[in-house]
Order: sequence, then structure tokens, then C-alpha cells
Amino acid sequence: MNTPKEIVNLSEALNSMPGIGPKMSNRLAMYLSVSGKKQAINLANSLLEVTSKIKACKECGNVTTSEICEVCSDDNRKKDIFFVVEDALDLYSIEMTREFAGLYHVLNGVISPINGVGPSDINLDSLFQRIKDLKPKEIILGLNPNVEGDSTSMYIKNQIQKIDSGIKITRLAKGIPVGSDLEFVSQQTIVDSLKSRAEFD
Amino acid sequence: MNTPKEIVNLSEALNSMPGIGPKMSNRLAMYLSVSGKKQAINLANSLLEVTSKIKACKECGNVTTSEICEVCSDDNRKKDIFFVVEDALDLYSIEMTREFAGLYHVLNGVISPINGVGPSDINLDSLFQRIKDLKPKEIILGLNPNVEGDSTSMYIKNQIQKIDSGIKITRLAKGIPVGSDLEFVSQQTIVDSLKSRAEFD
Repeated sequence: MNTPKEIVNLSEALNSMPGIGPKMSNRLAMYLSVSGKKQAINLANSLLEVTSKIKACKECGNVTTSEICEVCSDDNRKKDIFFVVEDALDLYSIEMTREFAGLYHVLNGVISPINGVGPSDINLDSLFQRIKDLKPKEIILGLNPNVEGDSTSMYIKNQIQKIDSGIKITRLAKGIPVGSDLEFVSQQTIVDSLKSRAEFD
Repeated sequence: MNTPKEIVNLSEALNSMPGIGPKMSNRLAMYLSVSGKKQAINLANSLLEVTSKIKACKECGNVTTSEICEVCSDDNRKKDIFFVVEDALDLYSIEMTREFAGLYHVLNGVISPINGVGPSDINLDSLFQRIKDLKPKEIILGLNPNVEGDSTSMYIKNQIQKIDSGIKITRLAKGIPVGSDLEFVSQQTIVDSLKSRAEFD
């Protein structure tokens, strides 16, 4: 007995989502086809609504329903400092701290040769163009501290220095997160936090 | 700054799926709205295809594209033994063993007062009607061995005995699964396997 091809296709579409494995996809596809029919229709409609209405901001790549996002169209924000992040979720996390009043640039990805993602596949050309146009004083690199994030940061730094070697390029501090325990953080985190130790005040 | 309502709706729709929590929903909704637009459209189409083409078999509740599923329309299968399962995935798991040649009855759920699921919300009335019509000799209860599965089995047993007290009602054996270790199975499993111990041959 074969599973109907419609269910196989749905299972494959679910499995292509980041974080959903093959077992969970099968389970969900089977559930949505009979018991969860209403939820399936609701999910399909939400997906179509998002894909038709949401786009990347022409300036920074943030999610928006207009051409230009809320941050970029806000005249009260400083235009001389850019915060480069991997995705819009990171932007929302930073906005919630209310500690940053400059502009963002959302890459919607990181350079990852192993996944076939090169510099031209993410929102980088527009970053370099924006730097030429707006001539910011500082670029903060806020990519996640892992191999791909670090190598993307390195690539961006090299490219920016070719455009204007006077721009200050900073990165977020690496160290022990609040609430954690030295016993449980990685050795590299301890090394990083030691190198970047600061005056106790 | 507020997340666009389209993304919030998509996140809620994803969060309503079994096994997808709020963090993962936010992550997926944001991803699907910009970087994963193609995947989102593909998923929406697969969902609509499944909801329009797949239905529950009129006889047994299994997933099918016809009125009657492959199992029920197979004349070579024994009609005097029913295997009651929670969902079609369980049916497929049993079919893969090629050890059962009777009919199934797929409940598409279990009785669960805590989730507001009563006997009339799952595919039970048609089971009792089928028993009256086909007068099977044996009903195998193959629901998952947890509180809800066990109480649903108990309910089914009581109802069947009201219809015909002569029908043999069996359940799958509880015991130590192949490949596991006594050290790691629950105490209840050890008790079950001890009660159902069999002659060593």
C-alpha cells in the first residue's frame, strides 16, 4: 500500500522547512490531511497572504508591507550608523532593547559555501551601495558568533575597507552571557571573555 | 516597532500545528516571509492539494483519494477481524510488517476530555455500525499505550460488548521492546512484561 502522492508531496514540502525533520513531516502531513483539515486551510491562507503582502525593504532588507520599512522611514533615527544582522528576527530582538537608534541592514542569510550560499545570494550588494550613498561613520557587525557568521563578517569587513578604509567597523562583544555559569560555557567563550576583559568599575 | 500582522498570523497558524512551539513558529514565519518565499508558496499549494483531494475512507477512516480506501476495497483481505488504530500513520506502520491481512478502523484521534475530544468527535460511530453490519469475530485494539489510548480502548470495549458480547476483543502485548534494556524501560513496562510473561521455547 502506498501513501497517496498528495500526502507525500506535503510531507516533502514540510521537510524542506528549517527545523522540521522527516518523521515530524510525515506525522504532520498525515494529521493535516484528515483530522487537521481546517488548520491546513488556515495555514495555506496565511502562507499565501504573507507571500503576497510581505516583501524585503528596498533599503535594508527588513520585512515590510510597504516599499520602505518602519525603521528606514523613521526620520528620528541616526543615519550614520548601520547594524548588520542575519535576519529580521535579530532586528526585532535588538529593537526590543531600545538601545540602538541607527539603521539596520538585514542580510537574510549568511555566506555558507557548504549550503551553496555565496555573497551574491544574500542582501550584500545593497549594503555596499548604501555605504557609498549614505557614508556612515560606523558599521556594527551583529551576525551570530559561529563559523558562517564569522566568515561572513570577515568578508563584509574586507569589502567595506575597499570602499572606504575610514569607516569604523565594530562587532558585538563575545563573552559570558548574563545568567550562565563558567562551568558550562565553552572554552572558546572563556578565551574570548578573557581577551576582551574590561576594567572593573 | 510591531511585526506585520501577516507574519503574526502565519506564526499563529504554524504554532497551532502539533509539535511546533512558539519560538520555532516565529522563526519559520519570518523565514518564509522573505528568504523562503518559494518554499512558502510550494507548501501552501501542497496544503491546498491535500485538503481538496484527500478524504477519510467512508468505511474505515483511512486516508484516501477515492470514496473507499485501498485496504477496504481489497477483496483478498479477511473481513472478520478489525484492527483499531489511532491514525493512518499507525496503519501504514502495521501494513509494512505484512503480518495482518484483515481490515482496519482508523479513529483519527483518541478520547481526551482535557483537549475537549469526546467519543462523538472521533471516528467511533462508524466502527460500531461496521461491527453491526460485518459481524467480525475479533477486534484488535492497537491504540498507543498511554492514558488516553487506554481509556479510549476501555470505552470501545464496553460499547462493543453492548452490541455483541460474543466478539473477541484483544489488545497488543505490552512488554520490553526489542533492542531496549531493562535498565532504561519504565517500572510499569517491567510490571506489564512480567504479568504477560510467556513460556520460554
